[in-house]
Order: sequence, then structure tokens, then C-alpha cells
Amino acid sequence: MNKFDAIIIGMGPAGITASIYLKRFGHNVLVIGKDYGALEKADKIENYYALGTKSGKEIVMAGMLQASELGVLVNHDEVISIDYLDSGFLVKTKRMEYEAKTVLIATGKARNTFTKAKAFEGRGVSYCATCDGFFYRKKDISMVGYNEYMLHELEHLLPIVNSVTLYTNGNELEVEVPDTVKVIKEPIEKLYGENRLEGIKTASTDTKVAGCFVALGSANAFTIAKHLGLDLKDNNLAVDEKYMTNIPGIFAAGDVVGGVLQIVKAANDGCQAGYSMNKFIREN
Amino acid sequence: MNKFDAIIIGMGPAGITASIYLKRFGHNVLVIGKDYGALEKADKIENYYALGTKSGKEIVMAGMLQASELGVLVNHDEVISIDYLDSGFLVKTKRMEYEAKTVLIATGKARNTFTKAKAFEGRGVSYCATCDGFFYRKKDISMVGYNEYMLHELEHLLPIVNSVTLYTNGNELEVEVPDTVKVIKEPIEKLYGENRLEGIKTASTDTKVAGCFVALGSANAFTIAKHLGLDLKDNNLAVDEKYMTNIPGIFAAGDVVGGVLQIVKAANDGCQAGYSMNKFIREN
Repeated sequence: MNKFDAIIIGMGPAGITASIYLKRFGHNVLVIGKDYGALEKADKIENYYALGTKSGKEIVMAGMLQASELGVLVNHDEVISIDYLDSGFLVKTKRMEYEAKTVLIATGKARNTFTKAKAFEGRGVSYCATCDGFFYRKKDISMVGYNEYMLHELEHLLPIVNSVTLYTNGNELEVEVPDTVKVIKEPIEKLYGENRLEGIKTASTDTKVAGCFVALGSANAFTIAKHLGLDLKDNNLAVDEKYMTNIPGIFAAGDVVGGVLQIVKAANDGCQAGYSMNKFIREN
Repeated sequence: MNKFDAIIIGMGPAGITASIYLKRFGHNVLVIGKDYGALEKADKIENYYALGTKSGKEIVMAGMLQASELGVLVNHDEVISIDYLDSGFLVKTKRMEYEAKTVLIATGKARNTFTKAKAFEGRGVSYCATCDGFFYRKKDISMVGYNEYMLHELEHLLPIVNSVTLYTNGNELEVEVPDTVKVIKEPIEKLYGENRLEGIKTASTDTKVAGCFVALGSANAFTIAKHLGLDLKDNNLAVDEKYMTNIPGIFAAGDVVGGVLQIVKAANDGCQAGYSMNKFIREN
């Protein structure tokens, strides 16, 4: 009872895709997720193959429904801990305890932001240049950041948009940016706009902008990972080419293992991890 | 005129996804495809994330429409040759000539089959155990094949189905199969059934089967690749971690580079190749 071939933590593209493959390989699978993750904030996604244009929430819901219809259990709950058993793992949530032969960590990655940006999420504030840069082509936009990660996002935007104003929001700039980028180091006082973002104010500046890309680097809150003794690499969970962590039976996929933060990449991670977990379950 | 940042050969998941990313990165992109590839034969796909259940043709059409709406040119045509220019490549089709800074080969992989199976494609005959095995759980099914590739497919089916009858169709069996598998070496005389496949006859046998998995190994018709001098690896196009072949500017993605023959994997290949081609175009 309450024993599964695979427990998947996270109900975004990586977790749900893995669950679909594992179910269809003949295993009993439980997905546990506490929220819709980074996708919930995306109001318009048009680069996921064969889906046209949808919101992030619509995509997450469609994925969950698809898994449920195939017989995957999808539970809204929060995982508190994972512990070792003689064979497999004990997964404790706020409400229940489960046993699993294998576990997939597909919890995504919290995007760093700052409080003032939250009000305009999906209405001018974006967290992904690759995803949303196209919507701002030939427009005057802004970016918030100061490190290597910001530079990476900036390089995607520059060839597409008309101009970029960069706010370090009080931080020292850790990288060099092209001369065409106007840099404002004063802390941001206010983002304003009636329906969508229209401009940004600091103590001595007021700039009209069509959008604001927040690129403050990615967070890494791996409490469970640390407890289990999982190896990290560049602030991501370290996995081998089979998507297995350093602990046999524990796999990881999606944003949490690094790489581009794209739905199709996360879904493919989930597919590949599904194949590997299937093999692991059959052999052990 | 007729000069593109990227020409993509193939309009399946890999090619179309690459075109979507490249267009949104700000490039002008042409996709050339001669048919709908392997997906056209798939009557029911339920493991592509967030899409529920669709036919292969519906998925290909949705992808093409999505790319077109973003401003990608998608042409039905057949590529005859690719030649070197001083900067870039000359792509000749049956009807036109184009210049391109980069080329992506995403032509897929023809599945080997045999004539008698064709009439029941999508009505009991399948070419992918991972994709369709689930539809035959606890049923008596058959498989056609004799080599390592067949064994790989067989191992996926055995835990799911009730029984497998293996037809080598006149070939010598090159691998060992479990004792539970009945092996028939006589050539197949007939697949029969009213609407769907119901059974298979050889000279001395007549067996009722719910499905037939054809696993005769994958073809490798790389005429263009050979002409260009592209390296192969295990009968696939060899690419580096950036999806670039041994010729700078020529990339490859999808089934043609190997790995699991899944939509999500091909689409992710296309996404990753799109990033790499964007970088290549900006730097050259």
C-alpha cells in the first residue's frame, strides 16, 4: 500500500512527461507537486512545438490532465523529506507517507526577482529573454541585473530590440556591457503603468520602457537534495547521461539539472529520465 | 534575394522547432520538406507533453501552422543538393535555388518495413514499441524482426503484453530471445483482418494477433550527407554537443542524429540546434 514504482516530485513539463512515459511502460506512478512552478508566470508561450500560443498555466493544466487520463496519480501536496529504506525510498509529504522504488526530482528552479517587479509579471515584466524577447522587437526595453547571467540574457535581446536600459538596482556591475546600453546604478524606486508596464523611476531618472527583463540569476534552494547528499554542479543537481544523480534510484530532470530553461528541453529531460527509470526498475 | 540566415530541411518536430527558435531570435528562415515523414504513419500519439491525444499528421500540421504564423517560410519541395559557396551554402531543390548561412538537416529516418505490413499501418501495424506498446497491454501480439534492434523493441513489449509471436520473415535470428517468445522463421504469407489486423499466416501457421510491431532496423539513406562529406556514427549523422556536424555551418537534429525516436526528443534537438545556429550566425 502506498508503494509506487516511481514517485515524481514536480508537476511541470519534466515531471509530467516522465510520468507519462513510465505509466505507458507499465509502472504505477505518483506525481506530487506543490504549485505550477515557473510556468505559472508566463502569460504567452508560442515556441513549444505543435501547441500554437498558450499561457503557461494552460500548458501545465493540459499536461496534468493528459497524465491523469493515462492513469497517473497527480496529487497537490508538498514533499517534506526523502529517506532511505532497505529497498527504495520513503517520501514524506505534508499529508502522507509513500514508498517508492525510484524518485525523480523535477521541482524546477525558482527565478530570482524583486518585489517591485511582481505587480507587472506577465504585463511587461519577463524572466526569459529567449522566450519573450521576440514580443519586444524594435522597442525600447529595460533589464535588471548585474552579473554573467544578465549578460547572457542581454546578448539575446540586443539584436532584436531598439534599445536597452540596464538597471543594476544598487549592485556593482560585475561584467562589461556594450556602449549602446545605458546603465543606471541607482536603486529602482518604482515600476509604473496603467495596465502594462510603461516606465521605471529611480531617484534621479524616469525612463519610458515597453518591457523589463529581470535577470538576477537563478536561485538554488536544494534543501531535500542536501539532506540526501546529492551532488551539485554549477548550482544545479548533478546527473549522469541517464539523468541519475549520485544516489542510485534518485533521478533528476528539467530546470533543476541546468541547461536552457525551455519547456521542450524539460519535457525531453523527462522523457529520457523515464526511459532510464524504466530500465532501473526492471533491473532492480 | 533567396538568401536566408538558415535553411532547414525537414518539416517534422526537429526542423519546425528549430525554425521557431531561429525566427524568434530575429533570423529569416526557410523550411523545406518533401513529406510529413515518419509521423504521418502514427494514428495516435498520447505521450507528447501537453497535447493530449492526436494523430501524427495533426501534430505535423499544427507545427507547420505555428511556424508560419511566426513568419517562417515553409515550402513543400525536395532538396536535390547542397553545395559550398564562398560564404555559406547553395541549396538546390526541384524547383528553386537558395543561399543560406547555415543549414539544418532534420530529414528524419525512414522506418524499414515490408510490403505486406503497409495495408495495416495505423490499424494494428506499428513501428515503435515505446510509442504504441501501451495500446496492446495484456494482448497477444506479434513482432517482425531478427536483429539487435528487434530485441530492443521486444524487451519493451514483454512486460506489457500477454504474449509475443516473433516472425523473422525468412531471416536467420541474430540474437537470443526469451523462451516465452514463439519464433516462426517461415516467410510471412499474409496479414489479414477486416478493419484492423486480426492474424498472420505463413505456409504452415495461422496465428491470431491483436497487433504487429515491425522492427526491421532503421534505414540510412544519407545521399546528401555523403555528397557533402558529413561524418556518420552508428548509421546516424555525427554531431557535436552543439548539434553541428563536422562541417561548420551544417547542423543536424532529430531522428537523423540517433537517440530515441520520440517527438519530444526531436523537438528538443531542434531547440538546442536553434540556439547553436543563432550563435553561429551572429559570430560569422
